[in-house]
Amino acid sequence: MADFGLFETMYSAGAIRRIRPDPVPDEIITKVLDAAIRAPSGSNAQAWTFIVVKDAAKRQQLGAIYKKASAILTVLYADAKPPPHMDQSKFDRFWRSVVHLFNHMGDAPILIVPCLKQSMWTNAASLPDDIKARMASAARLAGSSIYPAVQNIILACRAYGLGTTLTTIHAFFEDEVRQILNLPPDVQSYALMPVGYPQGKHGPVSRKPVNEVACLDGYGKPWPG
Amino acid sequence: MADFGLFETMYSAGAIRRIRPDPVPDEIITKVLDAAIRAPSGSNAQAWTFIVVKDAAKRQQLGAIYKKASAILTVLYADAKPPPHMDQSKFDRFWRSVVHLFNHMGDAPILIVPCLKQSMWTNAASLPDDIKARMASAARLAGSSIYPAVQNIILACRAYGLGTTLTTIHAFFEDEVRQILNLPPDVQSYALMPVGYPQGKHGPVSRKPVNEVACLDGYGKPWPG
Repeated sequence: MADFGLFETMYSAGAIRRIRPDPVPDEIITKVLDAAIRAPSGSNAQAWTFIVVKDAAKRQQLGAIYKKASAILTVLYADAKPPPHMDQSKFDRFWRSVVHLFNHMGDAPILIVPCLKQSMWTNAASLPDDIKARMASAARLAGSSIYPAVQNIILACRAYGLGTTLTTIHAFFEDEVRQILNLPPDVQSYALMPVGYPQGKHGPVSRKPVNEVACLDGYGKPWPG
Repeated sequence: MADFGLFETMYSAGAIRRIRPDPVPDEIITKVLDAAIRAPSGSNAQAWTFIVVKDAAKRQQLGAIYKKASAILTVLYADAKPPPHMDQSKFDRFWRSVVHLFNHMGDAPILIVPCLKQSMWTNAASLPDDIKARMASAARLAGSSIYPAVQNIILACRAYGLGTTLTTIHAFFEDEVRQILNLPPDVQSYALMPVGYPQGKHGPVSRKPVNEVACLDGYGKPWPG
């Protein structure tokens, strides 16, 4: 098959928050998901489910939850200043696009909700209590079995000219999301991704340079690269 | 620059657990990290630090922690049967390569430890208690700001002919990892990735098919693709 450039794709797959309502062919979504599942998951368990929401009423319901969650984010950001790597005008542009998505999540022609079944270790009960405590303290690792696949979705969308962005605040109202998507008790959602053709263009992804975010042999000693 | 095929890379970037001790040029690691940071992070905060461990003594210390953590995994897997998508011989091969890494993590020429600073919302205290509780219940989302970058590391390594794999069990002994890597109190590790040239070859990544792991409009209704 014709392919796309890996690095070209990575370097231009910025968040797209303004999305056209035009429909996306099912075949493209299937190709995006087929790329998603090439990502790793713990013990290669592939305990993931990707829910593709096309139904307009469900999209609007999820959009309303996202909007409700955005009120929390707005409080958290009320006094936010631009981080050191963004000047004020860049930060203002960023925030305007975030607010646009607050109001239009449900208007994207497709929403993808990546979900994960909680792992169940049949022998966990036999472990000593201190080990159980150590495992419980590592709850932050749960996403290691789903967010790599999410990144593949982002890259595959970019390759096919689709825009998307990784959002998570819907999960503040996970109880309502579960009802809309009929999630079983042991399955949780990890992201809400609007997918569709972008209103604007995919641009270059600018970031803090590597030597500010990489260290050699321990925290604090910059990587020389 | 010359580029690599996106989908070709995704479809052949399987976990590499047997790694040659040969050195890897710093310039390649810098390119891998420069690709990593093109991934998204919550609010584009880029609160990540990638610690590249080359020092032999520190690699062996981290390897010893991984080995110790493997004893826990071995208990959890004691009665494991192959999942439906793996036959016994494939599962046995998988497990042998896992055990190889248990014993040789510290022998990889490079270990990458992706870390993340915990986000600090200056206004969180002003939120109502029920909202605080909702945010606390979404702790599983933390990895959304680091594992997309980890997937970019996996893909960039594959493109440059390097092998790696995403592992997390070192975090059961995070207290010891923090000491070795000199992590500040608000920074946590999320993965331990051996990086080097593979002993074998990168092979095709086989997975359960999309129609078994994707649904339309809600859990349980298979995606037709």
